[in-house]
Amino acid sequence: MSAIELSYTQYQIVVNIFSFTMTATTVSAIFFFLKRQDVLPRYRTAITLLGMVSVAATCNYLRLLLSWREAFRVVNGAVVQTGVPYDDVYRYADWVLTVPMLLIALVLVLDLPLRQARMRSTILGLLAVEMIGLGYPGQIATTITTKWTWWIAAMVPFLIIIQQLYGSMSAAIRAEPTEARRLISLARLVTVATWSAYPVLYLLPIMFPARSNAIVATQIGYAAADTVAKAFYGLLICTIAQRKSVDAEAAAATDAAFTATALATRS
Amino acid sequence: MSAIELSYTQYQIVVNIFSFTMTATTVSAIFFFLKRQDVLPRYRTAITLLGMVSVAATCNYLRLLLSWREAFRVVNGAVVQTGVPYDDVYRYADWVLTVPMLLIALVLVLDLPLRQARMRSTILGLLAVEMIGLGYPGQIATTITTKWTWWIAAMVPFLIIIQQLYGSMSAAIRAEPTEARRLISLARLVTVATWSAYPVLYLLPIMFPARSNAIVATQIGYAAADTVAKAFYGLLICTIAQRKSVDAEAAAATDAAFTATALATRS
Repeated sequence: MSAIELSYTQYQIVVNIFSFTMTATTVSAIFFFLKRQDVLPRYRTAITLLGMVSVAATCNYLRLLLSWREAFRVVNGAVVQTGVPYDDVYRYADWVLTVPMLLIALVLVLDLPLRQARMRSTILGLLAVEMIGLGYPGQIATTITTKWTWWIAAMVPFLIIIQQLYGSMSAAIRAEPTEARRLISLARLVTVATWSAYPVLYLLPIMFPARSNAIVATQIGYAAADTVAKAFYGLLICTIAQRKSVDAEAAAATDAAFTATALATRS
Repeated sequence: MSAIELSYTQYQIVVNIFSFTMTATTVSAIFFFLKRQDVLPRYRTAITLLGMVSVAATCNYLRLLLSWREAFRVVNGAVVQTGVPYDDVYRYADWVLTVPMLLIALVLVLDLPLRQARMRSTILGLLAVEMIGLGYPGQIATTITTKWTWWIAAMVPFLIIIQQLYGSMSAAIRAEPTEARRLISLARLVTVATWSAYPVLYLLPIMFPARSNAIVATQIGYAAADTVAKAFYGLLICTIAQRKSVDAEAAAATDAAFTATALATRS
């Protein structure tokens, strides 16, 4: 185990960032579970998935916080290593569960025909599992060559996901009404932008091994990317679902009024 | 790390105040989540936000209580420092998440047109984030000049928020029905009054460095301000939403009765 020298401020920043992420994901889970009732039944699975992702993130960050506090102890204001390594490999367990759900939530607010929605969800879900699965051996590997090899391997499904979102799904996104299209394009951009942070953060400890700044920066970066990719992205998906529900209900009301007027005129 | 000498009573007061605040925010969260069903759908997001703020506050105070008990230990009736610093910097993580939500909840019970509500929420939310973000470097700074510099910087967005609430939002508040206007004005006053406590509390440890009375007074002051600014303020917003929902339903019932009478007269 390599020696890591942390200042109290570095130690404290990570504790506070993890605590903040736990709270943000807890309250966003509550938001999604309550918001679920406000959208049409056909969008509820998407919102439920977002709530589940948030709960999984809370569990993940509680686990990371406990591991951080087990690996380092504060003695007379100074931070000492306890001998128990800090274990953030658990992040991969969280991601393999939640990343497919995030992609499927996007597919489910698109109003695709059932067969096509199922096909898109399966393709994107499997690509996400593959991406995380290929990143994991690199994370636990000890040689730089092995780490790079798996990094390159994991980039392949990531690039295919981007190609899916911007290539073969473009037609479906263009077919959406203006307001929804704008929000879906933003959600897609947030996905690609935040997910691009992960391969960069993965490389930080390779570039600067055993440097305490690199370790702290990696933890802050992952927490920030997780918060945006889960809570903020979820909020966007939720807004899309709510907007489409309101529009659909307004259209139904107009139809009903039109029918009533037509009937009244005819009689 | 500076030496802090606390009497057992001082130590105990903080433990009890934190426990009280945790309980108050927990039960107010339950109140908001249940009350949510009793208001019209258009006010539900506001009430949901209030519940989320209360849950975040509970997490915050649990975290503060644990940190307080980690920093001080009672040995044979005397309070000794353990060597782990008391960490209340986490308050800023809570505030950066919850203060925008509190302001947005006020905007959402105002019945503004969608576009204007979104604009007001964005402006007030960003100002709140800026205010907390500028206060934070001062909180962790070690020199008095730096602390004062950031204090002044954070006061700028705070004064703009007051100007927004009492200036550009006045017209919208005056347009509300009498009863709602009175409650909204009170909620606005509670916001400005309780939030004014924070910059004063921030200055206490600067004025009286390493004085145990100042530390205890700061903790009690923050807890009291948090309870009023979150639970009591939330109760006001909730009352506004409920009053407006009841009035809207009564108006709808009158309309329906009027239409029925008109139809009956015509036939």
